[in-house]
Amino acid sequence: MAKIGFIGLGIMGAPMCRNLLAKGHDVTVYNRSREKMAPLVAAGAKDASSVARLVEEGDIVITMLSDPTAVWEVVAETAGVLSALTEGKTYIDMSTVSPESSREIASMVRKTGADFLEAPVLGSRKPAMEGTLVILAGGDPEVAKRMEPVLHAMGNKVVYMGEVGLAAHMKLIINQMLGTLLCVFSEAALTGMAGGIPAEKILEVIESSVVGCQAIRIKGKDMLGERRFPAHFPLKHAHKDMRLAVLAGDAAGVPTPVTAAAYQLFSIARERGFGDRDVSAVLRGLTEK
Amino acid sequence: MAKIGFIGLGIMGAPMCRNLLAKGHDVTVYNRSREKMAPLVAAGAKDASSVARLVEEGDIVITMLSDPTAVWEVVAETAGVLSALTEGKTYIDMSTVSPESSREIASMVRKTGADFLEAPVLGSRKPAMEGTLVILAGGDPEVAKRMEPVLHAMGNKVVYMGEVGLAAHMKLIINQMLGTLLCVFSEAALTGMAGGIPAEKILEVIESSVVGCQAIRIKGKDMLGERRFPAHFPLKHAHKDMRLAVLAGDAAGVPTPVTAAAYQLFSIARERGFGDRDVSAVLRGLTEK
Amino acid sequence: MAKIGFIGLGIMGAPMCRNLLAKGHDVTVYNRSREKMAPLVAAGAKDASSVARLVEEGDIVITMLSDPTAVWEVVAETAGVLSALTEGKTYIDMSTVSPESSREIASMVRKTGADFLEAPVLGSRKPAMEGTLVILAGGDPEVAKRMEPVLHAMGNKVVYMGEVGLAAHMKLIINQMLGTLLCVFSEAALTGMAGGIPAEKILEVIESSVVGCQAIRIKGKDMLGERRFPAHFPLKHAHKDMRLAVLAGDAAGVPTPVTAAAYQLFSIARERGFGDRDVSAVLRGLTEK
Amino acid sequence: MAKIGFIGLGIMGAPMCRNLLAKGHDVTVYNRSREKMAPLVAAGAKDASSVARLVEEGDIVITMLSDPTAVWEVVAETAGVLSALTEGKTYIDMSTVSPESSREIASMVRKTGADFLEAPVLGSRKPAMEGTLVILAGGDPEVAKRMEPVLHAMGNKVVYMGEVGLAAHMKLIINQMLGTLLCVFSEAALTGMAGGIPAEKILEVIESSVVGCQAIRIKGKDMLGERRFPAHFPLKHAHKDMRLAVLAGDAAGVPTPVTAAAYQLFSIARERGFGDRDVSAVLRGLTEK
Repeated sequence: MAKIGFIGLGIMGAPMCRNLLAKGHDVTVYNRSREKMAPLVAAGAKDASSVARLVEEGDIVITMLSDPTAVWEVVAETAGVLSALTEGKTYIDMSTVSPESSREIASMVRKTGADFLEAPVLGSRKPAMEGTLVILAGGDPEVAKRMEPVLHAMGNKVVYMGEVGLAAHMKLIINQMLGTLLCVFSEAALTGMAGGIPAEKILEVIESSVVGCQAIRIKGKDMLGERRFPAHFPLKHAHKDMRLAVLAGDAAGVPTPVTAAAYQLFSIARERGFGDRDVSAVLRGLTEK
Repeated sequence: MAKIGFIGLGIMGAPMCRNLLAKGHDVTVYNRSREKMAPLVAAGAKDASSVARLVEEGDIVITMLSDPTAVWEVVAETAGVLSALTEGKTYIDMSTVSPESSREIASMVRKTGADFLEAPVLGSRKPAMEGTLVILAGGDPEVAKRMEPVLHAMGNKVVYMGEVGLAAHMKLIINQMLGTLLCVFSEAALTGMAGGIPAEKILEVIESSVVGCQAIRIKGKDMLGERRFPAHFPLKHAHKDMRLAVLAGDAAGVPTPVTAAAYQLFSIARERGFGDRDVSAVLRGLTEK
Repeated sequence: MAKIGFIGLGIMGAPMCRNLLAKGHDVTVYNRSREKMAPLVAAGAKDASSVARLVEEGDIVITMLSDPTAVWEVVAETAGVLSALTEGKTYIDMSTVSPESSREIASMVRKTGADFLEAPVLGSRKPAMEGTLVILAGGDPEVAKRMEPVLHAMGNKVVYMGEVGLAAHMKLIINQMLGTLLCVFSEAALTGMAGGIPAEKILEVIESSVVGCQAIRIKGKDMLGERRFPAHFPLKHAHKDMRLAVLAGDAAGVPTPVTAAAYQLFSIARERGFGDRDVSAVLRGLTEK
Repeated sequence: MAKIGFIGLGIMGAPMCRNLLAKGHDVTVYNRSREKMAPLVAAGAKDASSVARLVEEGDIVITMLSDPTAVWEVVAETAGVLSALTEGKTYIDMSTVSPESSREIASMVRKTGADFLEAPVLGSRKPAMEGTLVILAGGDPEVAKRMEPVLHAMGNKVVYMGEVGLAAHMKLIINQMLGTLLCVFSEAALTGMAGGIPAEKILEVIESSVVGCQAIRIKGKDMLGERRFPAHFPLKHAHKDMRLAVLAGDAAGVPTPVTAAAYQLFSIARERGFGDRDVSAVLRGLTEK
């Protein structure tokens, strides 16, 4: 069993960490808000006095942070993962970041002699708890192979995507499709409801159709009903991913007219004040109600 | 068992008709190209000398035709279903038509004293053969109830949507979502492939994600690979449905900016000469290759 | 000088009628709200007791009405221009209608033996008063030639477009460009102002540039300033024209992705309650303020 | 009269330089391809042996280069304007660059003690020759005031926009409006022509309308006629400006759905191989012909 340092005990990180413990790994934890560490320590994790100590004592360092800025800070700036990494250690970033920023971090990490793996995940809180996340791995294939048992403690499927950046790009593709699908679902379902089709019929038929998928299953009922939009994946982050997807297309010479229209509907929803609500609140770009 | 007249023995109609025969119904068939009738007659159907005779002798008349023009011709014009319908008979149109044209036909049929049901289907050739279509029913709830056993001979799920027009509208919603999803999938996957992600990885990860659905499962491989686009659902028909979806939104006061962008990508693909290929050829609106 | 019957004394019609009188024409007027007739009668026009009498006594009948429905009613329904038209008379419709509806009216008018000309105008109240409208003429070239002196009493430029429908189509093209231009101006100027460029600088530079045009000159100041949007050309009518422009492209096999995006921004502005304000209120589709 | 060093003698720079000489300024010139210097030297300019000497001997240094990369190289890298600038000198960049890159250059220049002014121009070759450019000035108002006589030698209108970055942003606004206008003009005019309106009628009526402007006057005839698209302003640069405009809106919290659709039509035209043709070749995103 591996000696693992785990940084970032949020909605996703905490249950992922528990699953590592459950599989018998020797886990040391660190979180900026230290009160989040107690439950994990109670469950058998060790309490790291500092990020530097966590890195020094572990063979593997994992970060699961909310955004690229947090990763940057933990790795390169104040918290200083980078300065403590040495040859023989492996750093796995499981946060969602852009391909560019993942490549930059990889390059810095490799200069220390340590190995690097990007491993963004598909799935939210529930699959994180159940250990049924899908994990996308990008980096050296040897490293990916070696880390598979650790990753399998947190997810039930690991897909090796290729070099660093490709796993991050693949995650972007999923978010691009999700964001656009929620837009067209909003447009179609609001029109259908205005024409007299009950919300539950719309959801039932979509579910039975070729476009039936988990995204609608999870979010559709709230979108056509109470419209509380509890933030599993904040709209402002989805908005940013839509922008990155358009720019990725531009850089590759691939037009993205439909993604661009969806991106702009996210802009409109955000201008209306829904940036901190769930991605599904993009529906409110279409209607005042 | 019911006495059924079945008109329209195309890719969908023929296997649906076979399933009616298999359940023991007494079926008389009619098709404009009469050579398509022989295999059904060999399977136990009766051969109608004319549409008028088919209507006169049946309790239930079913049409499964390729487009609203064909329906119009069979019902109201030359073929003349309308003039032979009388009280006590039920006419079920299973073709895909617009809500408006379905309402017009309903109104004409009801003036003859006959009952009317719209019953468009979800699913293509394979589920038609296996009897696993999803059938959307719109019309009088009594009539829908009464026709359920007949519909269940052709599909494994019947969803009653409400008054005439709502089933047609629901089918439009599915096509609107399908068309837009294929657009964003094309944009995202072409970008990913240009960046170095292998096609099969893209498909594998989408399948494991919240946007994984049958549409991508069925069409994705060809779209990212050989690009033959065999026409299961012709792009020009999908293009027309995208237009109808935008106009339905307009009539209901619901903006549809993302559907409109997808509608235009279909226009571009069609201008490039892909109107008679499969809906999935919308990808070719984005790339010369 | 011609004997002219003039129907429709609104914001445009009244000053156009005064210009006919000023050029010495013998004008009889009719308006549904009869109180609008008095000022014209005071200026020398005759008061028609009914539409039928106005048509019977005139050589030329002109309508300048607010929308196709009003034209339809005056021509074909209750008011009955059609039933009083005979050979030797000419009917000129100067209202803005769709090419299709203009063609339908032309066909009905010609069955009476009378001549028909469509003659929609470019320009609003001020050029109508000054007799500086641009008049687009569609119909038989002989008729257009013969009517030129009459049209020149109201406008300083008459452009013969070709057969009936083409003048209406040309007017649609102008509205399509105007609507889209106001959208991109809104997007660009709001961004510039947010970045610190004063509104008057934006307007000054646009005016000096290759995109400087009367539309921005007339509407720009209010759009970037007080945002009262006084309705010269109601947004809901512009919205309808954007839809017609997209459908005209579709019918002609020409993709219109940018017009479609503008069309949808009009939908959003209308959903936010700006349908009865000026076309320039499309800016409010972008911002709550 | 000022001692001016002028770098960049391309299509725009050469005639601008001639106008400075014509007004009696003492001008030293530099160009990377040295053969472009001879005609200016024949017209009275001095020949700079190096960029460093040009900067040392002048009071004012002007660059008019094709893109931000060229500016960067001349100012900060190999050519080294920066290392020769000192207090008392003024550097004016008249190239078209993004607001961000202009601000970066300003900050570097000011560290040398020299003054900085951004002064992008509106107008192409002909107004450059005639001295009728519109010049947008961004920077310290004192510096702008002091440089006005020099700028007036090259343009007939100088608009002071405010701090550095705002003139660059204003230039972006003009390009954003121009790019979108050419898109909607293409969509509208192609539809009109398909419907039977002759190209020259379309151009004549637009010219007489509220959307009549120099952009259509200059480019319209070729776009609807021979479609040679001679590159005055390359489509690939316009494409980049459309992207910058969308990103500027995003950064300012202003949705830009119509600009985004135009941006994508530029992507499509570029994918079809029109990147090096004129901006007006965006029409070819809509049609194979």
